[in-house]
Amino acid sequence: MATTRAPRRGRPGYTRDQVLQVAVDVFNQQGYDATSVADLAGRLGLTKSALYHHFDSKEQLLELALDSALGGLEGALDEAMQHSTVAEQLSEGIRGAVQVLTARQAEVTLLLRLRGNSAIELAALQRRRTFDQRVAALVRQAQAEGLLRDDIDAGTTTRLVFGMINSIVEWYRTGGSIDPDRLADEVLTVALDGLRPR
Amino acid sequence: MATTRAPRRGRPGYTRDQVLQVAVDVFNQQGYDATSVADLAGRLGLTKSALYHHFDSKEQLLELALDSALGGLEGALDEAMQHSTVAEQLSEGIRGAVQVLTARQAEVTLLLRLRGNSAIELAALQRRRTFDQRVAALVRQAQAEGLLRDDIDAGTTTRLVFGMINSIVEWYRTGGSIDPDRLADEVLTVALDGLRPR
Repeated sequence: MATTRAPRRGRPGYTRDQVLQVAVDVFNQQGYDATSVADLAGRLGLTKSALYHHFDSKEQLLELALDSALGGLEGALDEAMQHSTVAEQLSEGIRGAVQVLTARQAEVTLLLRLRGNSAIELAALQRRRTFDQRVAALVRQAQAEGLLRDDIDAGTTTRLVFGMINSIVEWYRTGGSIDPDRLADEVLTVALDGLRPR
Repeated sequence: MATTRAPRRGRPGYTRDQVLQVAVDVFNQQGYDATSVADLAGRLGLTKSALYHHFDSKEQLLELALDSALGGLEGALDEAMQHSTVAEQLSEGIRGAVQVLTARQAEVTLLLRLRGNSAIELAALQRRRTFDQRVAALVRQAQAEGLLRDDIDAGTTTRLVFGMINSIVEWYRTGGSIDPDRLADEVLTVALDGLRPR
């Protein structure tokens, strides 16, 4: 078994990335738990053993997809934190998160729908919590500096703003009429200035 | 079969509502598609045939739960629309939606995770779209009256605000430290006034 799985790339028809992309779409459509390797192979028009040339298991596909979503979000926050002021860190952090959500929509959708039914899911949820805590700490700092209102708890503030951001994966259409940069600006405007004209 | 299913109420141990509540929790936890009637019966400690005394099918449980979520949201909006000004309709609509989400958290979670894999799901998604369109029409009217900024599209505005509202089902804990009325006020504050101190 180990020897037949060795050549992981270059199967005619699909790259590893393409297989992963299709798998994530199927997971999102019918649920990870309800998807079998046979379902994935069927969707790709591959045999199960051809699919195993690309990946070791369904779990590995899940893990890679979640790592792409979380890695993107963490990277965007790391980059935002390079800015020197808390105001910029916050606005670039929000902007960066919107951009990751539009660029890695399927992977983030999978992340947001996790139920924690396996060790891989629990690890991803823990990593997501760590990310949320970093953002909440930034929000708390912005409140302390008077940049954000402090009559709403930093945790609630973070959850509401990320609720707005995360919803984007539900309705954003790649190649549609909404430009990701413009959307990032709009999210920032609603979050900071609200909908009521000043 | 029809005769054994006749007595739909009064089975010792569970009311119909309690069975429905447990079913919704299981659907949310492991996914509707991945849940069998045997899983539900197992969780309730009932035989499948005892479960069939309460409900005709897994589909019926789904349909009732979705109707509870959608009916709640529609009812809250209907009530808000009784107010005479657009400003009140909007603020009471947002407040009402938050209250439905905290009161019917599990049912709304199920609604928000639908993938449209069956006629029941497609019908619920259509009903949800109709609800969204009613809210977007209200937002458009509020923009026309100068109550809301009009540099952001009414559809995007509606989706972002409902993104914030809908996220509540992911983190709100019944009986926790956050009062639903206070949360509704906070959502309204963030949506209308934003996080930046004026």
